[in-house]
Parts: sequence; C-alpha cells; structure tokens
Amino acid sequence: MLKTVIVGASGYTGAELTRMVHLHPQLELTGLYVSENSTDAGKPISDLHGTLKGLIDLPLLPLSSVESVAQTADVVLLATAHEVSHDIAPVFLAQGCKVFDLSGAFRVQSDSFYTTFYGFEHQYSDWLDKAVYGLAEWNHEAIATADLIAVPGCYPTASQLALKPLIDNGLLDLNQWPVINAVSGASGAGRKASMTNSFCEVSLHAYGIFSHRHQPEIATHLGCDVIFTPHLGNFKRGILATITAKLADDVTESAVSDALESAYQDMPLVRPLGAGQSAKLQSVQHTGFCDIGWSVKGQHVILTSAIDNLLKGAASQAMQCINIRFGFAPLTAIV
Amino acid sequence: MLKTVIVGASGYTGAELTRMVHLHPQLELTGLYVSENSTDAGKPISDLHGTLKGLIDLPLLPLSSVESVAQTADVVLLATAHEVSHDIAPVFLAQGCKVFDLSGAFRVQSDSFYTTFYGFEHQYSDWLDKAVYGLAEWNHEAIATADLIAVPGCYPTASQLALKPLIDNGLLDLNQWPVINAVSGASGAGRKASMTNSFCEVSLHAYGIFSHRHQPEIATHLGCDVIFTPHLGNFKRGILATITAKLADDVTESAVSDALESAYQDMPLVRPLGAGQSAKLQSVQHTGFCDIGWSVKGQHVILTSAIDNLLKGAASQAMQCINIRFGFAPLTAIV
Amino acid sequence: MLKTVIVGASGYTGAELTRMVHLHPQLELTGLYVSENSTDAGKPISDLHGTLKGLIDLPLLPLSSVESVAQTADVVLLATAHEVSHDIAPVFLAQGCKVFDLSGAFRVQSDSFYTTFYGFEHQYSDWLDKAVYGLAEWNHEAIATADLIAVPGCYPTASQLALKPLIDNGLLDLNQWPVINAVSGASGAGRKASMTNSFCEVSLHAYGIFSHRHQPEIATHLGCDVIFTPHLGNFKRGILATITAKLADDVTESAVSDALESAYQDMPLVRPLGAGQSAKLQSVQHTGFCDIGWSVKGQHVILTSAIDNLLKGAASQAMQCINIRFGFAPLTAIV
Amino acid sequence: MLKTVIVGASGYTGAELTRMVHLHPQLELTGLYVSENSTDAGKPISDLHGTLKGLIDLPLLPLSSVESVAQTADVVLLATAHEVSHDIAPVFLAQGCKVFDLSGAFRVQSDSFYTTFYGFEHQYSDWLDKAVYGLAEWNHEAIATADLIAVPGCYPTASQLALKPLIDNGLLDLNQWPVINAVSGASGAGRKASMTNSFCEVSLHAYGIFSHRHQPEIATHLGCDVIFTPHLGNFKRGILATITAKLADDVTESAVSDALESAYQDMPLVRPLGAGQSAKLQSVQHTGFCDIGWSVKGQHVILTSAIDNLLKGAASQAMQCINIRFGFAPLTAIV
Repeated sequence: MLKTVIVGASGYTGAELTRMVHLHPQLELTGLYVSENSTDAGKPISDLHGTLKGLIDLPLLPLSSVESVAQTADVVLLATAHEVSHDIAPVFLAQGCKVFDLSGAFRVQSDSFYTTFYGFEHQYSDWLDKAVYGLAEWNHEAIATADLIAVPGCYPTASQLALKPLIDNGLLDLNQWPVINAVSGASGAGRKASMTNSFCEVSLHAYGIFSHRHQPEIATHLGCDVIFTPHLGNFKRGILATITAKLADDVTESAVSDALESAYQDMPLVRPLGAGQSAKLQSVQHTGFCDIGWSVKGQHVILTSAIDNLLKGAASQAMQCINIRFGFAPLTAIV
Repeated sequence: MLKTVIVGASGYTGAELTRMVHLHPQLELTGLYVSENSTDAGKPISDLHGTLKGLIDLPLLPLSSVESVAQTADVVLLATAHEVSHDIAPVFLAQGCKVFDLSGAFRVQSDSFYTTFYGFEHQYSDWLDKAVYGLAEWNHEAIATADLIAVPGCYPTASQLALKPLIDNGLLDLNQWPVINAVSGASGAGRKASMTNSFCEVSLHAYGIFSHRHQPEIATHLGCDVIFTPHLGNFKRGILATITAKLADDVTESAVSDALESAYQDMPLVRPLGAGQSAKLQSVQHTGFCDIGWSVKGQHVILTSAIDNLLKGAASQAMQCINIRFGFAPLTAIV
Repeated sequence: MLKTVIVGASGYTGAELTRMVHLHPQLELTGLYVSENSTDAGKPISDLHGTLKGLIDLPLLPLSSVESVAQTADVVLLATAHEVSHDIAPVFLAQGCKVFDLSGAFRVQSDSFYTTFYGFEHQYSDWLDKAVYGLAEWNHEAIATADLIAVPGCYPTASQLALKPLIDNGLLDLNQWPVINAVSGASGAGRKASMTNSFCEVSLHAYGIFSHRHQPEIATHLGCDVIFTPHLGNFKRGILATITAKLADDVTESAVSDALESAYQDMPLVRPLGAGQSAKLQSVQHTGFCDIGWSVKGQHVILTSAIDNLLKGAASQAMQCINIRFGFAPLTAIV
Repeated sequence: MLKTVIVGASGYTGAELTRMVHLHPQLELTGLYVSENSTDAGKPISDLHGTLKGLIDLPLLPLSSVESVAQTADVVLLATAHEVSHDIAPVFLAQGCKVFDLSGAFRVQSDSFYTTFYGFEHQYSDWLDKAVYGLAEWNHEAIATADLIAVPGCYPTASQLALKPLIDNGLLDLNQWPVINAVSGASGAGRKASMTNSFCEVSLHAYGIFSHRHQPEIATHLGCDVIFTPHLGNFKRGILATITAKLADDVTESAVSDALESAYQDMPLVRPLGAGQSAKLQSVQHTGFCDIGWSVKGQHVILTSAIDNLLKGAASQAMQCINIRFGFAPLTAIV
C-alpha cells in the first residue's frame, strides 16, 4: 500500500481524487491537506462534498509543514494553485515522493512560458526539465519512470486526444491553424465564491479569447499553432471541444478514421465513435472516458471531443498516471 | 412626469425596476443609486445587466447624501438591505417623497418582530404604524393614500395570494396549520458572490426551516399560523409555492373555486387557473402574473401558486403600488 | 455466477441495472431484453446509453419467448411497465427464477388497489400474497427468502425511509396527516418522447395532485394516511421529499434524532444528517444513498429526504435486494 | 389597423409572433391557425403557452381553406414547415396579402437549393425571384416594397450580422473559410415530442456537421464559403455563434471595430460591444437584440454573436420587417 496524500483536497478535483484514492486497492489515503490558513481546515471533507459522507469523513488538515508531510508520503497529488505547486512540489520530490501535479506549474518546458502566461518566474528549471507530461495515452513510457508528472489541463486533454493522431500522421495542412472551440462546465473555475460563477450570472459565453493559458500548452505539446477559444457553459461538469482543421492534400475520411482508431485501439478510456458521429457531453460526464467523433468534407475535418473536465481532464487522468507509474492495472479506481 | 430614483439599482430587482420605470410614461428616471462605497459606483447599469445595454446606460451613482437626492425626487424605490431601508426611508419621507420600500423594514407593525427576525432594533415606530403593506390586489385603498408602502416579500406574495381568499371566506380549518412548501430561483438571494449561490453548489434543498423571516410576515398578514419551508431551486427566477391546508367542515371544491375566482375577477395580474389545475413556473417567469391552481379531496385543499420572484414578488408589485398610488392605469409598465 | 437477465433494459433504470449487474462479481449478465416490437431491438445498449460504450455493448434482444429466456436465467430484473411485469413475472417464477420487479405490479397486497390505481385487474393474487416489498433497510428478513421481490417506487422510498422510524416509534400524531411534497427529476417519467418531458416544456410544477399511484403505496406500507404531492423539477435525476408532520405530545427533537439515528446505525446507505440539517439533492445524485435531515419546532417536525430516483429509488435498491437475497456483501456493485 | 393572421401559431415562434402582433398598435390579430388536422385545433393558444393566459385566449383554428383566410387578411405570418410555406404562400400572395414567411421556403434564389437541402422541388420560381431576404438591418430598401419577405433563419441571422460588415469592407481573407461554431437552445427544434429534445437526452453536442441547411443559406447571402457547425445546448432559448476568420493583410483591430460600429450605428437592435468584448447569451434572451463582440490577434479575428433564436432569429425580426414594410416606427412591439 502506497501512502498517498492529496494537497488541495477541498476543491472539486480534490474531492474526485479523494474518492478515487479511497477506491484504489493499492493506495492508502493518509492525509488530505488544504492551505495553512484555509477556513476549511479542520472540517471533514464530507462537510464540503456531501457525496463523500459516510465513505470518507477524514478532516482537511492545514499544510503547515510540507517537509514533515513529505516524510510520511509515497505518492503526492497536488490539486493546488500553479504557484503553490511550483513552490511545494520540489520539497516533496526532495524527500523521494512521487509527485502528480494537476496544476500548470510543470507542464511546459520553457521558463519564459511561466513569466508570460502565469505571471511568475519559474525557479526550478531542473524539475521543469525532468517533469513528464502526463497525457496518459501518449506518454506511457516516460510516465512509467518519472518522479514528477505534470497532469495536463482539461481543455488540452480534450484537444490533444482528438488532434494528435491526425497531426502525428501528417494528415493536416497546418498552414491553416486548427480552430478549437470548447465549452466547459462551471466546475472548471474551481470551488469558490465569485460573481462570474454565481448561478444567475452563468450563461454561455466565450472568455479568454486569444489569451487563455491552455492555448500555449496545447500548441507546445502538439507542435503547431492553434486557435483556441474557451467558453463557459451552463452545466456543472464536462468539456466539449469542436475542432475544425484543414486536411493535407488527398487525405480521405478513411485515413482520418484509421488514424484515430489505430491510435486508441488498445486504449479503453478513449472511445473513437466513428466517422459521422459526434461526441455528446452526457456520455462522458462522471466517467474517465474521452469520446471522439469526426466528419470529413472536402478539405476539412471537424472533430468533436468530450471529457469530464474533473475526471479525464484532471483526477482520473492523474489516476491513470499513477497506475502507469506503479504498474497497477490501467483502469484501477477509474472504471 | 414624476421624478423617480432607485436606490439599490445594481441588483436583480433594481435592474427590473430600472427597466419598468424607463418604460413608464408618467415616470422619469432621474437617478440610479448604489451604496456609497460600492465597487459598482460609476459604472453604467448596463455593464452589470447586459439586457439594458443601449436602452438604459445611466451610471450607478454613489448615494453620498440621502437628503440631497430626496430633495430632487418625487418617487423613491428602495431595493436595499433591510437595515439600509430602515435608515434612509425616513429621510426621503421627511422631504415629502413617496417611498416604495422593497425590503422587509416596514412590513410588519411590531417593533419586536425586527429584533427577533431581522437582528436590529426598529427606530421608527411612527413610520411602522403609517406604512401600508403593498399586497396590491388586497390593499388598494390604503395604498392609494400612503406615503410609505412596504412592498411584500416574494414568498409572502405567492403564499398570501393563494391563501387569503380561502381564509377570508372562512373556508379553512386553521387549527391545522397550512403547510407552505416553496421553491425559489437563485436570484432570490440577490446579486452577489457566495458559495451557496455558486453555480456548482446550487442543488435543490430546503433552507431556513422553521426560521425564515417570511414565515412571520405571512402569518401576521394572514392572521393565522402557517408552516413555511423555503427551498432553493436550480433555476434563475420564479417561485412555486405548494400549499396544503385543511378545509373547514362541509367546504366543497366549488366553494374554493368561488372564493378564488371572485377574489380575482377584476384583478388581471392574478390568474386563477381553475379546479384541478396546477401552476407552472414557466408560465409566469418574466411576467407580472401570479398563477393559482387548486384541488380538493375530502377535507384537504392543495393550492399551487407561481410568480416571478423578481417581478410579482418584487419589482412589478412595486410598480402596481405606484400605479395605484398615483392613479395611473393599473397595468402600466407591467404588461 | 448467477445468470442474470434484465427486461426493459432500454430505459434509464434498465441502463443503471445493466451497469451494476456488469460490475457485480457474482452476477453474469446473460441477456438484455426489450419488448418484442421495440424499435430498439437489435441495437447495442450503448447506442442508447453512451456512457456504456466500450463497457457493455450487448444488443437489446426482443423478448419473443418469456419461457425460453426464463429457462436460462437465475435472476430476473424487470424494469418494465406495470402490466408487462404483471404478465411475465409469473412465467419467470414458474421456471424457478428469482424475480426482482421494479414496477408497481406486486407492491401492494390488495387486488382492488390495481383496478383503482393501475387500471387493470390483477390476475395473480397468489403471487401478490407471496411478493415481498423490497424496502431494503426495513424488510431484510423477508427479502432473504423471497422468490418475488417488489422493489419500491422512487417517491415511496424517499418518503418511507424518512417517516418509518418516527411512525414505528409512535412519535407522530397521525390524526393530522403527514404532508409529503416531493420533486423528481425528469428521468422519473422514463425514456420516451413526450410533450410533457420535452426540454422546453419542463418547468417546476406539481402533478398528480391527490391522484398519484405512489400515495396509496406509501400509505399502505406506512400504515397511515398521508398527503402526497409530486412535482416535476428541471433536473435529470434525483428526488427531494420535504415532509411536514405533527408530533405526538411531548416528543422532543432528541427523540426524533434517536429514532432516525438508531434505525439506520448499521445501514450504510441511509445517512441521517442530524437535527437542523437539510438533505441536498446533489449529495445523492449518481449514488445509492438516501440522505435524511430533520428539524423540530413546537409540535411539528420537518424531514427532508433525498435519493437518486434511478438508483436508491430503483436500480441500486434492486441490487440491495439481490445482495440480501443471495447473501452477497451488502454494498456489492453499489458503492 | 392591418388585419393580421398567423399560421403555425401553436409553436414557440408562433407564440412569440402572437404576443407581438397583440402588442402592435397598428396590427389587429384576426386569426391564429394550425394545420387542418392538428390535435391543437380548437384549443385557446394560452392552453399551450401559459404566459399568454388572460392576455390572448384566442382559439387555434384549423386552416381548412387558405383562400378564404387570405381574403380577410392584410398581413400573413407563416411560422410553418418549409413545405407548407412553399405551398400556401402563393395562395395568400394571389389574394394580395403581404406575406412574411419564417420558413426556409423562399430564402435562397436557386431552385436546386431546395431539391438538395430541403428534399422538395420548388414550384414557384417566380416567387423565389421576387422574394426579399428579410435580414432587417441589411435589406431595408428591398423589404420596404416587397410582397413576400423570407425572414432569415436563426443561425444565419447571428452569423451574418457579425460577418457581413467585415466581408463587405473587404477585411477578411476568404481563401480561408470562416469557421462558425454556434450553439442553439432546444426551442430551435420546435414544439414537439421527440427523443432528441427529451429533457434527459439534451446534452451539449454538435449535429448536422457539414450538412445543415443553414450553411448554404449563410454562404449564399454572404457570398463566400463558410464552415458552419451547429450545436444543441442545454438551455431553452438563444444562440451564441463564435466565428473565427482570417483577416486580409494589414487589417487591424481598429479597422474591424470601425466596420462593425459604423454598420450598426443607426441600428438600435444590433449592439456592437467593442473590441475585446464577448457576447453573452443572457443579455439577449427574451429580447430582440443581437450582441456582437470581437477580438483580433495577428491575422485572425474572433467574433461572438448572440441572439434570442425565437426573437431576433425569428419573430422579432419578422416584426422588424413588418415595421419596415409598412413604415411603422422601427421598434414597435419589439422593445
């Protein structure tokens, strides 16, 4: 049993991680942490997340000494703000913990990326170099030996899983930048009081146009420019990405189908739906799946990709990475 | 043209009042006010309420001197917190303004009510005595000559409009307290950031059980005890109240029908739907109507009453009171 | 491994049953059936319920010969219309199958009940007599040896779990009928095209006032009269019941707390939330739990009871009955 | 007073038309019609659309003789299926009625368009030639003298209002096709029972990919190719279109702003929100407005355009056309 702690357990992703670690037969949930001055410190997690009541009533502990927590943990899940992950991941790593970071702090191997898009200067170039990007279906080998896994963002997961098979097979004309329109549920903004996420204010609209942090994450890991426009939708969880791209000359629908179907034929958590099919949010909500549909007409392909933002876009993908890293059965605690 | 100011214009009720005053041919909208230190001060109201853009782009002004605003106004609409209304209404009244207060500050003619249910000691017994309860369909005569009209709360409006015809006609056995279960949209909590009203947290549940301020408001004005249980629903606007009561001996369904239909036969904004019918939220959302359905079986009656909480439960009822007070056509700016 | 078939597998409850039987280590899913002339016959169940794709892609088979299916099955789950269950349950039983019927066909041991409330004459008085009501927390012993288990309705489950501990302990004054107001998600109406359930028509309202079939089911099994008013809510799944009742003389809040807490102390799927607490829909959606809150003031108690209508109100309660009937661990395939 | 009839009055658009004709001081609502064998024939429209109760309780009449209805009408609003409009518009026109058709039957001046996209052969080339496309802000002059006005579709309205100023000013590089992603509320599918629109089935997804009828409507009237992907959203009304396009060389954000702002400076129902702003569904729901936001980065522009699909996308745009055609004040019955 690997001793597992979750930092940032009070949020929506934290609650899902808690549920899954609890389910996992090879992980022992040894501590749930929140920031030292959180007003949630001391409360049972089930006071915040009623679904957990009776299952997991562990208290949320204030993270007063990272080092002492690190000394007792084998596995650390960080569902913390970017700056917090940046600061504490190295402390855990120094104590030999395996760290699965769900923030953006170690996702892109470029220092300048952080000053530009996250507003802080990255202090740990060495860890940035060693960090492995946890896009589970595509990075199995590196994840299997990494100490620090940077679990991808929600929008990047939905986007890359659809586009990567086409790009890697040279099926797209990338002179024309793929256009990614994506709609996320309100849980993507985290568990906090804000006017933007106030029930009466939530109403479908685009935000972060030309400026969202996930654009460079997607572009860097795909190796090409993309236009990415996120939207807030009036639902709690899930992301639907609709992607329009130009095909390279003479690429047919069956080439697209082949690329997607062969990429995921041994990957049970990605479900290629077939040509002419369209991914539907409801089929993936509360699951660890990514559904992908596609259609081709003339020189264009339209892909639709749906995930649960809190699961495949965060917690269950972290769990996939844990299963890969420690050699557990790949779907443990997920399906 | 009566010079009209709205205090507390930034909220959802304030925005509806703004829209209706703007529509009203005999009212001139001369000022929109927010509290002196509001971060919204200075912004056009249409920045907060996008539907108003291009129609009403007046700025929200900080209410720095109540007295000087009072000197320029004929009609004052207060969509303010209870304590604020309590403090400023007398200042407006002293300058001769007619005041329509949408808070609870003057709704119940008992000082002790305020210490018990609102947590402050009422300083203006004289105004409490003179204030007229603005339940428009039932208090026409008093409203027509009042200086201070206390516009009823949302739940009390839905509840009283259904129950009053039965109680006034002696149709109920009040030894058994009527049971009012009501569900309100999230706009009832006002326009503000809070965890309770955060999109992902809103989920049908009862709150304020045995302790909501609207219970004594309802009981006082009906003159009988009631059990009132409010609920938060996962929709933006509207209230549905389902009321179960015991009938007095030998009361038939047709007696109930007669009471409701005759009470409202000349009241176009209350729509008795007929015996066996059930009020539906959607039919009244974005309208000034109250729909009432009823069914009788044996000794019991079940009434359903639906309103838009921001309109018939607040802004449009205030407008009804203005129309009554100044002798304007009753539906002006409402239908 | 018990060979298990599901009849009526195309609906929402059928899909949940399918998922749970698939998860259950002691059950083998051997057939999914729909009515003989269903247009869904022949399709994989995952075409109708996208969440199942890749997990369970079994075809929906037309139920052409009940008898031949019966010969191959140990366990039969009927998620069928009342009349269908009435007709086919005896055929399965005659072949020695254990039948778990989720319809109303065997829930009340009175022939006349069916003519009055279901519109058909019951032909199987013998099976009505032998059928055991599957309210899992309350009928363990009888379920453990039954051949035919009538799984309770969704509203009756939420209502009885809250009221039964109080009634059985004599805490209520039943001269005043308990008032049950309940709101159900749209999935309660089943998977079918109808105007009532059309997206744009769904809007909170009461229906079946004084006439819903679940009223006599509740009253019969509680042994007292109740007023039951169901509502359609604008959400997909879940039921919240708010129950107002009069206490017997001198009953205190702590007596209520004792009754509820002791009734469920060894029953992990019912979670008494404590005095002053209120059940919240979101905490039970997608789970097999029932949450119960209560408050007492003077002579009245208000109870709130929340379940997932498709799970604790149908499929997971059926699974509890299976686990009891065959001596499996009580939470298998549920938590 | 112009005698006005509405055919297809039972639907959502029909109800909005009914409300607006009733409000319009120069129009007299003389008849509400449904198809001859509709089960709604004979019912008051307010039975179907509860908001109208007490305001407009006219019966829905079966349209048994088009000709005799035509003889009594000055203005005809057709909220009918495409084939029905195709068949009956010429009959009304032959009697001298002015016809405002909200279907697709006369929107594109090409016979082959109808065989390809609507599945019927168009019989009235002469009327196709004479029909005027009712995009109110752009076709004022032609609408003012037309006998037959083809009111645009909902998606085409949102799309064209955003793109037309840029295309007409030569600001786009149309070698790269503009990508229009749009999400519509469920009312877009009309008032009918269907599985697709069943409450529990509605969940964000794309449909009609590369094949929706509105694509050629948009492309024809803009005069350029576009990629159009419609989506069903989990809300009742409204459309948000997010449009990504490539700018022509050296086009700046201020050129884009100039084009949009000058196009609509005297058009109160289109609200350009300014550079960097994003249209929000809620600001236009239940209104006749179109809100447009835009952002430029490098060679790309992203436009967001929001309308109420039943109003600016149907009924209120028809009313704009009526106001233009008969020289009434442009906002009559709309704002």
